[in-house]
Amino acid sequence: MRWKRISDAVVRRLPLYLRVLEEAPNQELISSQELGARAGVSPALVRKDLAWFGEFGKQGVGYETAYLRDELRKILNLHKPVPMVLVGVGSLGHALARYNRRRFIQDPNFTLELVALFDKNPELIGREVEGIPIYPITKLNEKTQELGAKLAIIAVPADAAQSVVDALVAAGVKAILNFAPVKLTVPDDVELADADLSLELQRLAYYVND
Amino acid sequence: MRWKRISDAVVRRLPLYLRVLEEAPNQELISSQELGARAGVSPALVRKDLAWFGEFGKQGVGYETAYLRDELRKILNLHKPVPMVLVGVGSLGHALARYNRRRFIQDPNFTLELVALFDKNPELIGREVEGIPIYPITKLNEKTQELGAKLAIIAVPADAAQSVVDALVAAGVKAILNFAPVKLTVPDDVELADADLSLELQRLAYYVND
Repeated sequence: MRWKRISDAVVRRLPLYLRVLEEAPNQELISSQELGARAGVSPALVRKDLAWFGEFGKQGVGYETAYLRDELRKILNLHKPVPMVLVGVGSLGHALARYNRRRFIQDPNFTLELVALFDKNPELIGREVEGIPIYPITKLNEKTQELGAKLAIIAVPADAAQSVVDALVAAGVKAILNFAPVKLTVPDDVELADADLSLELQRLAYYVND
Repeated sequence: MRWKRISDAVVRRLPLYLRVLEEAPNQELISSQELGARAGVSPALVRKDLAWFGEFGKQGVGYETAYLRDELRKILNLHKPVPMVLVGVGSLGHALARYNRRRFIQDPNFTLELVALFDKNPELIGREVEGIPIYPITKLNEKTQELGAKLAIIAVPADAAQSVVDALVAAGVKAILNFAPVKLTVPDDVELADADLSLELQRLAYYVND
């Protein structure tokens, strides 16, 4: 059951709603007002967003917190473990791996799990980061398919990023978070998100008046 | 000279245009078609975005690459060094500091420079990351003002983030990149960007079909 035509703007707000619900485990009901206020969204937009996926609330009563939380987890595919791979174990990739691993271990609600790291540096091969093995980049296709990973993180230099994307797509990956400072091309059925920190900082510099 | 009423959507595309121009240093002229294609934006939107800031192009000729590049740098405040501070030197903060420092050293076009790091862990105080000193969090106000930093990165745990934001705002910071997985509140004249990697991964999981 998928809702592929839902706009990305709607999908982008679902994890915000989920976080609010996960932070209110002992609250039986939540109104669209409260959910919106805590997610930074108007109550009307909350109702409209959720209506895309079904009838979750009762007018004048609100949403059942636990039920809506579980439904959102299913919609986002987060109700079961989501295996991920990461390519590029430089300083940023290393930190991302540690960060993800600790979050995964500490937070039972967080089901996104890095299961393999890849790098081309022979000195890194066979090592681990927080228990996650580092494989040679030549094993990317085989390991990614074997582990069933459909989500990947890229933290390689800009000039290597497109060939890494192509290899990930060939291995069946459907969603990619890219930290390389370069615009990448993917097929229509693959979702690519850029987490280009340099671009974001350059944008923020606009707001720094002297 | 500021253009405060320009929408954030426009500002968000300026660093993309700047990157294209910086990657074409030996090209005298660039058309809105080429600039748009390389930035992933339609030629009409390129022309509309740039028209907010002045008349940079000549019809049928295009933009002078070097001139437009320099003007965009000025608009984004990137024509001179931009001092930044980072709060929270855990594994992510550490990696971000290394990442920024290396980019700053290797790329003469990249003027965003981390000049101070802060942490509450006494064992870190007095140490450095790639030459950037780590100060106690109690020195945040004094050091941030002394260094003239108006841009800050937050990489502290969620429960500490709002008090760190408040302290940064009190020290005169005008733009913040937040890596803590929590929604933060800032005054109207401060720009806050969330770089919540967990939320982004949760969003991407939506696109992972099984």
